[in-house]
Amino acid sequence: MEKIEPRTLPGFMELLPDDQILFNKMKKTIEDTYKSYGFWPLDTPIIEYSDVLLAKAGGETEKQIYRFNKGDNDLSLRFDLTVPLAKYVAKNCNELSFPFKRYQIGKVYRGERPQKGRFREFYQCDIDVIGDGELPLLYDAEMPSIIYDVFNKLDIGKFKIRINNRKILNGFFDYLNIGEYYTEILRIIDKIDKIGFELTKKYLMEILNDNNLVNNIMIFICIKGTSIEKIKKLRDLNINNETFNLGVDEIEIVINNMLQMGIPQEYFEIDLTIARGLDYYTGTVYETILTDYPQIGSVCSGGRFDNLASFYTDKKLPGVGISIGLTRLFYQLKEAGIISSNNNSGADIMILPFGIDNYNLLYKISNELRKNNYSVLINYTDSKFKSKMKYADHYHVKYAILVGEDEIKGNYLTLKNMEERVQVKVKFDDLINELKKSC
Amino acid sequence: MEKIEPRTLPGFMELLPDDQILFNKMKKTIEDTYKSYGFWPLDTPIIEYSDVLLAKAGGETEKQIYRFNKGDNDLSLRFDLTVPLAKYVAKNCNELSFPFKRYQIGKVYRGERPQKGRFREFYQCDIDVIGDGELPLLYDAEMPSIIYDVFNKLDIGKFKIRINNRKILNGFFDYLNIGEYYTEILRIIDKIDKIGFELTKKYLMEILNDNNLVNNIMIFICIKGTSIEKIKKLRDLNINNETFNLGVDEIEIVINNMLQMGIPQEYFEIDLTIARGLDYYTGTVYETILTDYPQIGSVCSGGRFDNLASFYTDKKLPGVGISIGLTRLFYQLKEAGIISSNNNSGADIMILPFGIDNYNLLYKISNELRKNNYSVLINYTDSKFKSKMKYADHYHVKYAILVGEDEIKGNYLTLKNMEERVQVKVKFDDLINELKKSC
Repeated sequence: MEKIEPRTLPGFMELLPDDQILFNKMKKTIEDTYKSYGFWPLDTPIIEYSDVLLAKAGGETEKQIYRFNKGDNDLSLRFDLTVPLAKYVAKNCNELSFPFKRYQIGKVYRGERPQKGRFREFYQCDIDVIGDGELPLLYDAEMPSIIYDVFNKLDIGKFKIRINNRKILNGFFDYLNIGEYYTEILRIIDKIDKIGFELTKKYLMEILNDNNLVNNIMIFICIKGTSIEKIKKLRDLNINNETFNLGVDEIEIVINNMLQMGIPQEYFEIDLTIARGLDYYTGTVYETILTDYPQIGSVCSGGRFDNLASFYTDKKLPGVGISIGLTRLFYQLKEAGIISSNNNSGADIMILPFGIDNYNLLYKISNELRKNNYSVLINYTDSKFKSKMKYADHYHVKYAILVGEDEIKGNYLTLKNMEERVQVKVKFDDLINELKKSC
Repeated sequence: MEKIEPRTLPGFMELLPDDQILFNKMKKTIEDTYKSYGFWPLDTPIIEYSDVLLAKAGGETEKQIYRFNKGDNDLSLRFDLTVPLAKYVAKNCNELSFPFKRYQIGKVYRGERPQKGRFREFYQCDIDVIGDGELPLLYDAEMPSIIYDVFNKLDIGKFKIRINNRKILNGFFDYLNIGEYYTEILRIIDKIDKIGFELTKKYLMEILNDNNLVNNIMIFICIKGTSIEKIKKLRDLNINNETFNLGVDEIEIVINNMLQMGIPQEYFEIDLTIARGLDYYTGTVYETILTDYPQIGSVCSGGRFDNLASFYTDKKLPGVGISIGLTRLFYQLKEAGIISSNNNSGADIMILPFGIDNYNLLYKISNELRKNNYSVLINYTDSKFKSKMKYADHYHVKYAILVGEDEIKGNYLTLKNMEERVQVKVKFDDLINELKKSC
């Protein structure tokens, strides 16, 4: 029979078991942290009606959509978890209790040109808080405290949460009377990290053609100091613009509450260059970078928006949320050598029988171990000692339990610590205690 | 602006928060049990090349596939987790260690005609053990012991695992010289539970047109007794057919080991009518029914196969596996009133501030609670007492912590047990102890 080559699509991550364990651990850390802040789980379909999913999309996004017909239906795969949330909240608003806190961790699809570190199927790990009509600003302060908690627990090195408020930018450009160039200016300054100071200045000159204006902007976005100092310097600019001053008030409240929530100062900073997209966010915006690996870019972003679901409902639904692109993050961390899949075990303990017929004892052992929350497997193959040990090594089990004729006759087990390569004889009844002792 | 109606596709399950919590609990129980037997996690893409995914498909299956083009690629959504496993093992066989035990819990897609209890997007929860060339029969005995463990922990009532061995059926029909009608006969007797004894007999007559033969078959499939008794009766038939006798030997070993593994006898039975599809399984086959709700049908099925990946590789990869269709199961359990989403809480504790300006203490409390593994949220809204309590009720939190001026001044918290509707004054330092005491 002619064989079909077993291929996986480019841009679709498919991990070997060791890596998958590592990936799942990270996913679980994120999920557990989200849950600990009282977010409800949500699991929306991957396929939606195209008119529902693409209500807002256009341009670049729409081109990347996986869209197709099935029967009479025009369908699309979700490209983020925000639009499905908007649909869900608009659809179920009478059943939900507001502020509605939900997390969703799931795969999304974007038909981007595949390249190193870019994926067409990838996990997003999102939380959002949605208010009915209004949403207190303190939820904006809670988001970075969750980011801090998550990345602390992920234990992937130092990180910094960068915070800005879109009202500060909007107000400042209004004040300078360059509101009409708003979008273009934001697009340039949002990239200052990548293109540097001089290029930013050059591009701004090309648009504004006014040395004074450009200098004002450059001085503004490069304000130095701690977050508290930056707020003071912003106030000292004495800018007579309501939006600007509201933005400064907001960021001050957010920063003060973040400090009270216990985020150490060195883990965050106000960064006036952050805009995060052009038409969605309306207040606080966040980015997070790994301090020692800034080239990875933002690993957790989000912000405050005025209206989640205006395409579906007249109800005003403001919210604030963040998202971690886990698939890309995992790939980058592996590439940079920050995480490694060595020694991720598929089980705690493997039981290896040697030349015995009756497995009764093995079953008793494994049931007892599982009752005590150890994951355990029996190697049922009749392969040789060396091959069985190799299998146990591949599983990265912490312990192997060897049972042969000698053990059965002598009424004991041989418990082998696979890492230290030492073994002890243990009575069945002492097994759990012995294991607990050595952990 | 004209609004788009926020709709979800028919046949796609989308749950309200309470139900989602319940669903996730069941999913976690299944996953944790699978993990406790040393299965590696696997997460394959939802989209695959059509030629890879449909290598084996045809007929009914192919019609149900979500298939589409993107760029130059002919793509399909996976319709089960077995074909992706076959691809994965064939692709990575040099990197895997055999027997390869893997679990996968994920969504699959079938464009069936939508009807009550049928879903187009649904979760499958699969485990399989794949051998390289051969796989010991004891893995066939382990599967039902995992089914027993899972359904015990799901706690959804009594259940029975039905076991058969395809070799017994094959051998028996060979022996009767009706091997050519094999497929048709299997299709009929597989449905005896639905169509009953008389119709089964009638349909068999239509095919075989031989009263004697049909009676022989009916007597055979209706053999009564415990599993041990059935095995004895099968042997007593003195059927001179190698396949038949091999099948009886196999099922005897499987049953004996299941008993030794600790599955109580009343939780399983040999059922000679079970075939589970026509061309895939080659030995042991399983079904599981909820004893008090047989109309739900099998809630966990599977079996032994000779060759997982013959479409991709010449390597012989025998295996044994089971699958739980969780989405349908969840739906049926809810419909039958066996499970209920009442009181599934979105968090353990909600903190409710009343008329205070400084939230410092609230942050301290919530950090302390999270450190002690409680999930906790602060209600930041400035709504009235009643409305705040209603929010806490909707969350089904076990406790509310009330903090107002009185508490701040008196240096205590008010801890309210939401179920018993009683409240006590607690000092901040005593909070954790007080909570532990009441649990």
